[in-house]
Amino acid sequence: MNWQHVAGTEALQLSAIHQAHQLIEPYIVHTPVLQSPQLDELTGASLFFKCENLQRTGAFKFRGACHALLQLTKAQRAAGVYTVSSGNHGAALACAGQLLGIKVTVAVPASAPASKKANIARYHATTVEIEPGMPAREAIIAQWQKERPDASFIPPYNHDHIIAGQGTAALELIKTVADLDCLITPVGGGGLLSGSAMVAHSQSLPIYAAEPEQVDDAWASLQSGSIEPSRGPNSICDGLLTNLGDRTFAIIKQHVNDILRISEDEVVAAMRLLWQELKVIVEPSSATVLAAVLRYPDLFKGKRVGLIISGGNVDLSRLPWPVDYQELT
Amino acid sequence: MNWQHVAGTEALQLSAIHQAHQLIEPYIVHTPVLQSPQLDELTGASLFFKCENLQRTGAFKFRGACHALLQLTKAQRAAGVYTVSSGNHGAALACAGQLLGIKVTVAVPASAPASKKANIARYHATTVEIEPGMPAREAIIAQWQKERPDASFIPPYNHDHIIAGQGTAALELIKTVADLDCLITPVGGGGLLSGSAMVAHSQSLPIYAAEPEQVDDAWASLQSGSIEPSRGPNSICDGLLTNLGDRTFAIIKQHVNDILRISEDEVVAAMRLLWQELKVIVEPSSATVLAAVLRYPDLFKGKRVGLIISGGNVDLSRLPWPVDYQELT
Repeated sequence: MNWQHVAGTEALQLSAIHQAHQLIEPYIVHTPVLQSPQLDELTGASLFFKCENLQRTGAFKFRGACHALLQLTKAQRAAGVYTVSSGNHGAALACAGQLLGIKVTVAVPASAPASKKANIARYHATTVEIEPGMPAREAIIAQWQKERPDASFIPPYNHDHIIAGQGTAALELIKTVADLDCLITPVGGGGLLSGSAMVAHSQSLPIYAAEPEQVDDAWASLQSGSIEPSRGPNSICDGLLTNLGDRTFAIIKQHVNDILRISEDEVVAAMRLLWQELKVIVEPSSATVLAAVLRYPDLFKGKRVGLIISGGNVDLSRLPWPVDYQELT
Repeated sequence: MNWQHVAGTEALQLSAIHQAHQLIEPYIVHTPVLQSPQLDELTGASLFFKCENLQRTGAFKFRGACHALLQLTKAQRAAGVYTVSSGNHGAALACAGQLLGIKVTVAVPASAPASKKANIARYHATTVEIEPGMPAREAIIAQWQKERPDASFIPPYNHDHIIAGQGTAALELIKTVADLDCLITPVGGGGLLSGSAMVAHSQSLPIYAAEPEQVDDAWASLQSGSIEPSRGPNSICDGLLTNLGDRTFAIIKQHVNDILRISEDEVVAAMRLLWQELKVIVEPSSATVLAAVLRYPDLFKGKRVGLIISGGNVDLSRLPWPVDYQELT
């Protein structure tokens, strides 16, 4: 029996997010919430940034991966786990596996950024390089299901244990900051968004998602009412290129107020602003939330806005703005 | 009577740092203490980074400047204040003045980094450009003392109110992290170091300072037993180019265990490591503390080390490592 199909027949409950938080608390960083008077002035809002870029492995993904592993039985732990990931989920699973003594194998598309591949390898997971795209992804999963029937596939987002884990970031945020008026998170596969949406719903808070125009499949899915495929890999937001899943979409359809689209230039400008004003390293996917607040001011002006900064894994030798080399004297 | 010479006849007491903390608490950010498993592994120590780069105005300097202004009488506040600063102290004073409704004038050497000039101007202080170097600095102060006898000169480090304010960062750090074995801060004029040294001394903790080899006047001063002049402006650590003062040196001589010198290359490597692993923007001056832990491992191996990250004000279009431009597709 495959672990992926054990859960997921009933609607995820908010209590699952509370339970996930209790389980993962010894392993996660209780990430700080930062503010910037400059960004508040610029947006006319009060912005509270939940800094998951300061989470273990540099992304919120560690919450879900760690929770998924903690839900395994002793026998499942002994048999090991595998996944396919071009980035932060792979590193998160590798790190959680290392902490919990569970063998992790990650299939990595050849097209993944070198810095993200290195981030997976550092936690001593076994990595296997595959072709980019869904066919190769599905082929390797099918192969492993046959070869290692006792090992568990830990999907990057479309599973209730993952969704519940990701929701713990929003849970900490609303506990830390009183009287928020709304939340906003990026959306890729929808794990972070759906977990956050359940928390927002429990507090009757509106929740928005930010998505690059060039990969606006979540926006299109919300329009059409069924999951639309990702329209192409042409975004700098390498963490947001995946489709929604049925588990994440079910929650998003029910609880998310709107998906706000932004351009690539807006993402880069917001990323640079966050580096400059918040003094933290954020990856492009994370900058989408500030980009959306700047692009749709009417939704946020005068409001107390909780923004989830999803990750900070970037290659520091390659940046989306021109940089002069300051030689030492 | 000039404000600068009111205090400073008796030794600064630890209670002054506690009082400073109470006074400035409504205005400062209680900055987070961050850790990195990677940096711990690399150094063989447990490193606790007190992130003053996330302080208001992006540097610990706000603590001292805010405290100095809060110590002014009503008449002194009304008469305004002035200073000379090429960077973080000027911005900190401008910001504190804006918050407290005190008129601030800052003389800025023409050679100051553009990003730091902009950081002063944003808080609507009056700025006056002067020639770089001590003679021009002393000339403008003498001129203002004559022209505006009621206005107060707020020095960047050599004053007990400033030292007490800067010491509050270490105070928060030792309250947040139990059982530290030692502290380390950068040293420029010595405000942060002397305030931190008083806190360290009260807990019987050894304290070290990190200083670039190319501007090792604090090291030389500790060797000779009297204040030695800064040996030249040839360091990437633009925050650490000043001489010690008599107030800061008196404390440093008494309580600082050693000054650890590092090379420019070591500073840049440590800066990049901090960006990559801690996911925060630190300026070169701040990176000196990690550089020192890496260079002098025998002092720190197996220890719980508190490091003060002093600031994060850098020009993001000019970095000390080669960066390729990632064009949008």
